[in-house]
Amino acid sequence: MPALSDVLSQAAKNNDAALERLFELLKIPSISTDPAYQAQCQQAADWLVADLKSFGIDASRRDTPGHPMVVGHSAPVAGKPRLLFYGHYDVQPVDPLDLWHNDPFAPALETQGGNSVIRARGAADDKGQLMTFIEACRAWHGIHGELPCEICFLFEGEEESGSPSLIPFLNENAEELKSDLALVCDTGMWDQNTPAISTMLRGMAGEEVTIIGPNKDLHSGMYGGPAQNPIRVLSKMLAGLHDDQGRVTLEGFYDDVPELPEEIAVQWQNLKFDAQQFLGAVGLSEPAGEKNYSALEQVWSRPTCEFCGITGGYTGEGFKTVLPSRASCKISFRLVGQQDPQKILASLRKYIEDHLPSDCSVEFKNHGASPATVMSIDSPAFAKARQALSDEWQSEAVYAGCGGSIPVVGDFHNYLGMDSLLIGFGLDDDQIHSPNEKYDLRSFQKGINSWIRVLDAVTGKG
Amino acid sequence: MPALSDVLSQAAKNNDAALERLFELLKIPSISTDPAYQAQCQQAADWLVADLKSFGIDASRRDTPGHPMVVGHSAPVAGKPRLLFYGHYDVQPVDPLDLWHNDPFAPALETQGGNSVIRARGAADDKGQLMTFIEACRAWHGIHGELPCEICFLFEGEEESGSPSLIPFLNENAEELKSDLALVCDTGMWDQNTPAISTMLRGMAGEEVTIIGPNKDLHSGMYGGPAQNPIRVLSKMLAGLHDDQGRVTLEGFYDDVPELPEEIAVQWQNLKFDAQQFLGAVGLSEPAGEKNYSALEQVWSRPTCEFCGITGGYTGEGFKTVLPSRASCKISFRLVGQQDPQKILASLRKYIEDHLPSDCSVEFKNHGASPATVMSIDSPAFAKARQALSDEWQSEAVYAGCGGSIPVVGDFHNYLGMDSLLIGFGLDDDQIHSPNEKYDLRSFQKGINSWIRVLDAVTGKG
Repeated sequence: MPALSDVLSQAAKNNDAALERLFELLKIPSISTDPAYQAQCQQAADWLVADLKSFGIDASRRDTPGHPMVVGHSAPVAGKPRLLFYGHYDVQPVDPLDLWHNDPFAPALETQGGNSVIRARGAADDKGQLMTFIEACRAWHGIHGELPCEICFLFEGEEESGSPSLIPFLNENAEELKSDLALVCDTGMWDQNTPAISTMLRGMAGEEVTIIGPNKDLHSGMYGGPAQNPIRVLSKMLAGLHDDQGRVTLEGFYDDVPELPEEIAVQWQNLKFDAQQFLGAVGLSEPAGEKNYSALEQVWSRPTCEFCGITGGYTGEGFKTVLPSRASCKISFRLVGQQDPQKILASLRKYIEDHLPSDCSVEFKNHGASPATVMSIDSPAFAKARQALSDEWQSEAVYAGCGGSIPVVGDFHNYLGMDSLLIGFGLDDDQIHSPNEKYDLRSFQKGINSWIRVLDAVTGKG
Repeated sequence: MPALSDVLSQAAKNNDAALERLFELLKIPSISTDPAYQAQCQQAADWLVADLKSFGIDASRRDTPGHPMVVGHSAPVAGKPRLLFYGHYDVQPVDPLDLWHNDPFAPALETQGGNSVIRARGAADDKGQLMTFIEACRAWHGIHGELPCEICFLFEGEEESGSPSLIPFLNENAEELKSDLALVCDTGMWDQNTPAISTMLRGMAGEEVTIIGPNKDLHSGMYGGPAQNPIRVLSKMLAGLHDDQGRVTLEGFYDDVPELPEEIAVQWQNLKFDAQQFLGAVGLSEPAGEKNYSALEQVWSRPTCEFCGITGGYTGEGFKTVLPSRASCKISFRLVGQQDPQKILASLRKYIEDHLPSDCSVEFKNHGASPATVMSIDSPAFAKARQALSDEWQSEAVYAGCGGSIPVVGDFHNYLGMDSLLIGFGLDDDQIHSPNEKYDLRSFQKGINSWIRVLDAVTGKG
C-alpha cells in the first residue's frame, strides 16, 4: 500500500502542470458582481467541471438564478467519513485598473521580496486556494486510483456578490451535500511560516439609520437655528454609542460575549502578535478599541460597532449653506460568542428611537445579520488537522480567530448541520480585493501538500 | 412744481408698458453659473444699458473677467445726496426643469391664490425687484425731466455665482461708485401687507473639517476594533459643539453677541411671528435652537453653528464593511453683532485639535468668512424710508432682521464706506432658487410706488 510520501512525491512531480492549470483558471475573468461577465463565470464553472472529471470525479455544472454552482462527487469509501470541500471561482472587480502593474487576467510568476508569487486577480481569493485542494486530490488519485474517502466538491460563483443563490441551493440539495465535515479553503496563515486553523469567526450585523428632520433641504440663513438639523441629531446619537473605555453602550450588548478560553488565550499570547506592525502598516500606532484588550483580542474575540459610511447634506466641492432634510449612517457590528444579531439590532433601534428628538423621524434598513461561528475544537478532526499542518510547515499550527465573517460557514451549520474546518494559505500582503493581488508560490505548493496530509490524517488514522 | 401724486399717477399710466419691459428682461436666460449662458448674460446687460439710456441715464456695459457690470449715472442735483442703487440681472439655474409648470423663460401673468403673479425664473430674484426701481426713476423722469438726486445705477451679473468680479470692480471704480447711501432691492416684505427694511444681516463663516485616521480604507473585519474610525471621531467632535441648551460650546463664541436693543425687541414681539406656521411649512413644529429665545430671534439675532454636509466611507447603495480613512463635515456659522469670523474659526480649529485622538490628523479648508451687518437705524434716511413705505402700504413698515447674508452690503461698507438701505418686495412663497419662481404683480406695482415715495422722502425733505 502506497505511503503518504508517495502522494507528496506525486504532487511534487505535478508542480509545473498544476501551476499551468491554475493559470488557465486565472485567465478567465469571472467577476460575479458585474453582469457583463456572466459568460466568463459560466466558463470558469465549465473549466472546473472538466478539471474534476479529468481525475474521475462525477462533476456537473448546476445552474442557479445567478451564476452556476459546480458540484462533484467521488465514490464512497466504506468506513470512511464523507467530506465536503468548498471554494469559490468568482473574483472581485479589478478597478482601479490603472493601479495594476499587469493585466489582472494575464497571470504571471514574479519575484517579490525574494519570493516567487503568482500575480493575478483571484490568485489568492480564491482560485489559487481552491486549486490547492483539487491538486491534492489529483495527486492522491494518481497514486491510489481513488480518493481517501467520499468527497463532495462544491464551488460557488457568487461569493464576491453576496451569495444570493447559496442558501436556496443548500436547501434544495441538502441530502446530496450533507457531509460529516466541511473543508473550506478561503482563509490565511498566521504568518508566512505558521499555518492556522480559523476556529472563531466574528458574526456581522449591518443597519442603515436615516434621520429625517425638515421635509426638504432648507437654507441655513432662513432656518438656521430653529430647524432640526439631522446631521447634528445623528452625530449626537453616534457619539453616544461608545463610552470612554471604547465599549459599546447599547443595552445588553455584552450579555452573550464570552471571555476567551484559557487555552486559546495562552496560545494567542504565544503568537507574540506585533500590534505595532499591524497598525503601522495602515498608518496607525495605538489600538483604539476596548481598553484592557490587546489589539489581537480586539480583532478576533471582541465585538465592535463601526461606522462604515455617513452622508447628509451637500457633500460636493465647495460649500452650500444647506440644512439637510436627512442624514444617514451605515452601522456595522462584528459579533462574537453567542451574541444574537437580531437582539443587537433591536437594541440599536431602541437606542435610536429613545434619543430621537421631536420633529425627527427615523428609517431603518437592514443589511444582513449573522451570528459568530465558534468551532468546537474538541472534535478529533481539529487536532488531527492541526498536527498535519504542523508537520508540513515544521511549525506548530495555531487555532486562530478571524475578525471577518465567512457566511458560508454559518450556512453550512444552519442548513446542513455541518461543522467546518477552515484552513487556508493566504498571507496578509496578498492584496485580495485590491490591485496587484498575488498568491505566494510557496502557499500554493505547500498548500497542496498540506491538504494531502490533512486528508491522510482525517481519514487514515483513528 | 409737480407733486408726488403726479409721479405716482405717471407710474400707474406706465403699468402695462412696465410689465412688458420686465417680460422682455425675463425672457433672457441669464444664468450666470453656467458658462453656456455667457452670451445671454451679456444680452441682459445690454438690455439694461439700453433701457437706462431710454430715460436719459448715461449707462454703459462694463466688462469684467466674468459677466459684465452695468453702470449708469444721472446728472448731479445741487444740494441733494448721491445714491447708489444695486440689483443683479443674473438668475439661478432652472433645474429640475420638469418641476416647472411653464417654460421658466417664457414669463406669464397667472392667478395664484386669488393674486396675479408674474411667473418666470428671476421674476422675484432679482429682475422684478430691480425693475421696480428703474420704473420708479422712469416715472419720476417722465414728470420732472430729471431724477430727484444724482443716482448711480449698479447692476451685477454674478450675484448667483459668488460675485467673483465685484470686489475688484468696487476697488477699481471706487470714486465713480462711492455715494452717500446705497439702496439695495433684493430682500422681502415682512408679510404680504407689511413692508420691511432689513437692518440686521447675519454674517457667515464656513469651514470644512476632514478627520484622517488610517492611511487607506480598511476592512472592518480585519481592523474593526483596534483601528481609529474617523466617522466616530468626527461624530464625537460634532456632538460636542452644542450643549443641552442648544448653545454653541466653542470658547468665546458668545463674547461679541449683543442682546437685542429694547426698541427692536418690542417691534419684533409686535410682529406676532407665527413660529408654528414658519416651521409647519417645512414639516417641523418646535423651535430647535437656543432655549429661551423665540424662533424669530433664533433666525434673526442669534448666531448658529450648523452642519451643512457630512461624508465618510461608503455612501452608495447597499453596504460595504469598510473602515474609512477619512470623514469630513462642512460646518457653517451664522454670525451676529460684533462676532469676529476669524476668531470663531480659530476657536473651532482649536476645539477640533484639542479633541483629536492620537493617530488622527485633521485638514481644514476655509469657505469664506464675513461678519454680520448691523445698520445704524439712527440715520435719518431710515426713518424717512420707513414712513414712505408705511404710507404706500398703509401698514407700519418694520425693521426686520435677516437670517441670511447679503455679502454686497458688507462689501459696500468695507470698500466704499457706504451704508445700505435694504428694501424689497419679495414674499416667502416666491420660490426663489426653486422651480416656478413668481413675483406678485402687487409687489411689482406697489414696489414701483414705494421707491417713488422713498426717493421723494430721502431727497425731498429735511
